[in-house]
Amino acid sequence: MTEKKGYAGNGFVHVKNPHLALMDEDILYHLDLGTKTHNLPAMFGDIKFVCVGGSPNRMKAFAQFMHKELGFEGDGKDVKDICAGTDRYSMYKVGPVLSVSHGMGIPSISIMLHELIKLLHHAKCQGVTIIRIGTSGGLGIEPGSVVITDTALDSFFKPQFEQVILDNVVVRSTELDKDLAEELLNCSKEIHDFPTMTGHTMCTYDFYEGQGRLDGALCSFSSEKKLEYLKRAYNAGVRNIEMESTVFAAMCGLCGLKAAVVCVTLLNRLEGDQITVPHEVLLEYQRRPQQLISIFIKKRLGLYNQNKLLDNAFFLSN
Amino acid sequence: MTEKKGYAGNGFVHVKNPHLALMDEDILYHLDLGTKTHNLPAMFGDIKFVCVGGSPNRMKAFAQFMHKELGFEGDGKDVKDICAGTDRYSMYKVGPVLSVSHGMGIPSISIMLHELIKLLHHAKCQGVTIIRIGTSGGLGIEPGSVVITDTALDSFFKPQFEQVILDNVVVRSTELDKDLAEELLNCSKEIHDFPTMTGHTMCTYDFYEGQGRLDGALCSFSSEKKLEYLKRAYNAGVRNIEMESTVFAAMCGLCGLKAAVVCVTLLNRLEGDQITVPHEVLLEYQRRPQQLISIFIKKRLGLYNQNKLLDNAFFLSN
Repeated sequence: MTEKKGYAGNGFVHVKNPHLALMDEDILYHLDLGTKTHNLPAMFGDIKFVCVGGSPNRMKAFAQFMHKELGFEGDGKDVKDICAGTDRYSMYKVGPVLSVSHGMGIPSISIMLHELIKLLHHAKCQGVTIIRIGTSGGLGIEPGSVVITDTALDSFFKPQFEQVILDNVVVRSTELDKDLAEELLNCSKEIHDFPTMTGHTMCTYDFYEGQGRLDGALCSFSSEKKLEYLKRAYNAGVRNIEMESTVFAAMCGLCGLKAAVVCVTLLNRLEGDQITVPHEVLLEYQRRPQQLISIFIKKRLGLYNQNKLLDNAFFLSN
Repeated sequence: MTEKKGYAGNGFVHVKNPHLALMDEDILYHLDLGTKTHNLPAMFGDIKFVCVGGSPNRMKAFAQFMHKELGFEGDGKDVKDICAGTDRYSMYKVGPVLSVSHGMGIPSISIMLHELIKLLHHAKCQGVTIIRIGTSGGLGIEPGSVVITDTALDSFFKPQFEQVILDNVVVRSTELDKDLAEELLNCSKEIHDFPTMTGHTMCTYDFYEGQGRLDGALCSFSSEKKLEYLKRAYNAGVRNIEMESTVFAAMCGLCGLKAAVVCVTLLNRLEGDQITVPHEVLLEYQRRPQQLISIFIKKRLGLYNQNKLLDNAFFLSN
């Protein structure tokens, strides 16, 4: 089985599935959308930026924020959940920006990505950039720092994702778009309120035992073993830990989507396991990647300089 | 590393983590609960039955249904989400029954189980039975059938769950409580509207490629290869496929929780991949495991015969 990167130059989203073209109808079950029930090109054809994140509330807040940032009328409070017919995922559209939740963990984001990629394909979208805006545990960096992933690693510090296909294991590359990561890092230079850096991101199947936490229902290792593992991860270049980046990088890469992962860190795992930061501080942390992505999108759309002052006013008042 | 089953006879829920007793406070982050902010024994000490399922709406509907079934006053429509402060999971309590959502996939249910098991431990609950009420793809059986899992298997038809701990792989047993499965099968004899059976349940990391679907964004195998795999699964005793049972069985087993998995099948995977059943039929299918669990809980509480007629009236009108 040979798996090639999907980007072919014409900018379309590539489904790599010969069976799809033979299907009379495609029901995107977990999004509550379909090719016969919805006019996908009319609904989504103008999408250029897809932002995904675990929490439905956070992705709604991002849509409302982008509504304001892109200068649309009204306060955006009434932005409609396109997937309201299901409680598996939430989806909001603001002009060329789609904001979608993916739940927690590799299997949950993988279901969403299969159906999202088919949606973008059916809608004939071109030149789409996709960015995961997430939360993560930091490694040796100040809580609240934003990490732009240069490489997504698995629990063994390898830049790969193992996909089980039937009962075979296929190893996929987790390479992300280098130019996009650099463009995002350049955008971060406009923001002086918090540190942003590039680094490796480790992606695990589990929040507790898999990330070396001492505070789960099960824990069979010592504090010393935990720190030894986390320090090895740090020395391998890992700056944050989350649960979706490897499959996100692998699937987007295969389907020709230029992809990036931008996560804020909620704590420094070398100093603890529990998330003890007050709720208001967490909310402010979670707005940081959104602020960065907003600058990126506005720059791409040629809207940045015009309303720069407006931005700062918005952030100061929020 | 030796891992023993947790059930010690006193009926308490066992956390297997020596570090927990040393912690001054335990914040159950993804449930928005904690030992200092909430009186967990007062809130949860009387819990005897925990029912978990992927969808928050479905678990709310189950709580409302149990409210009615257990004869509590009012229609239960205003049952309160105990985890309302977070959108990661939803949790409802109806007398001795706790109904909790877990999202989709092994990592998502694993986070919830770590925090739920600690919650039951902190609350000093005793004699708790936990049941996953889910949806699944069927294998060679009529859509709408309910499968009580006798053994949870991985994608390779092995009755085990591989847990990555730091960077070691630990293999855990996925054995479920045999007596509980038999008790549930006996309860099903009271229901004549749909078939219920015991069988092996296969648990995968992925809904599309991992379950042999031809309709994902990526598919590299033929229809013949798919059917060959699914038939091998059938011959190994698999009757349904879902995405949480192995880790659920492994974690509950280690922590002394008597556990069962009861899933309805939404389609027969030997005949297709897409879920084309109308919405109303899906809703009726999803009520089937709930109906079975309601009989089980009422029998355990000695409430079954009294309101049997009431039950039937409720189901006929819904």
